[in-house]
Amino acid sequence: MEVKRKIVYYVASSLDGFISGLNDDISGFVASNGVDKYLSDLANYDTVIMGRRTYEFGYKFGLRSGQPAYPHMEHYIFSNNLKLTDPDPKVKVKNIDLDEIEKIQNQIGSDIYLCGGGQFAGWLLENKKIDILKLKLNPLILGEGIKLFGKSSKKYRLGLIDTEDYENGLQIMTYKINYKGEEKNDL
Amino acid sequence: MEVKRKIVYYVASSLDGFISGLNDDISGFVASNGVDKYLSDLANYDTVIMGRRTYEFGYKFGLRSGQPAYPHMEHYIFSNNLKLTDPDPKVKVKNIDLDEIEKIQNQIGSDIYLCGGGQFAGWLLENKKIDILKLKLNPLILGEGIKLFGKSSKKYRLGLIDTEDYENGLQIMTYKINYKGEEKNDL
Repeated sequence: MEVKRKIVYYVASSLDGFISGLNDDISGFVASNGVDKYLSDLANYDTVIMGRRTYEFGYKFGLRSGQPAYPHMEHYIFSNNLKLTDPDPKVKVKNIDLDEIEKIQNQIGSDIYLCGGGQFAGWLLENKKIDILKLKLNPLILGEGIKLFGKSSKKYRLGLIDTEDYENGLQIMTYKINYKGEEKNDL
Repeated sequence: MEVKRKIVYYVASSLDGFISGLNDDISGFVASNGVDKYLSDLANYDTVIMGRRTYEFGYKFGLRSGQPAYPHMEHYIFSNNLKLTDPDPKVKVKNIDLDEIEKIQNQIGSDIYLCGGGQFAGWLLENKKIDILKLKLNPLILGEGIKLFGKSSKKYRLGLIDTEDYENGLQIMTYKINYKGEEKNDL
């Protein structure tokens, strides 16, 4: 049996399930040594996948079109219409297509870091492609914004694998998503 | 200075911020000794407040109109149109009015248990009336349903006071809501 690389959705969220507030506002997420832990964890990933909006969100922070957001990782930006002029060899655009996801999963390498955003993560979830959810749970109520899994309305149980507590009320919880039994309407 | 009774929103939620799924479905919430802990904690409250929909939700589980859902508590059901015929002396209907909330807060008694639901909790949150959020965080993605704070779009920071881990991945997190600084758009 072939072993596929796992897809890990490692993401900051509010208590009410938003990964950013209105107008992509992430200013409410707390400063914490938990963020340092997250950044050092990223060193373990050699590959990142993300949606177009998440990639372009980096432009606000100085990322130039075609450049890698994480210099040590291979980037796959999933979009059916994004065109990058003269991209870095580490940055590739792929159509939103499960075959493209599976090709990456079948390569040799580390777990795959799913950077976001909600819409792309929702599509992956609906296709049972996210293996692990690492939630940086912020002590924050946002009320509106981009949801953890976008417009997905799928229901799934998860198994709690690990919890870590950090400064300023930040917790990082690691869950395995259980896709068995999802056909049952009541879970 | 007068000391008001605190309002404690003690509620089960999915990881994506829903207190119930579509059509009030709560079947996905896990069985756990954390639920026993919650039930034993309820013994400490002598007063419960809730919205009409939450009270009527009890009918599905055998509650009769006008009866107390929690026999040891005084019940205040907030609704501008609910009429109960011959209610138990422990069950009172109040208009959705901050003065009615404050009257209850100014009585002598325990902390006040806010039982829900999302819409009533959202109204209280917008009026800065919820002091403590006790979140029974379930390892569950629901995707749709009733949101933790209904239609409220207010943003607030919270302080994490306590975390407790229970069976089957259930965690109970206790937060104090910080209403200072909410005027700042960016928190």
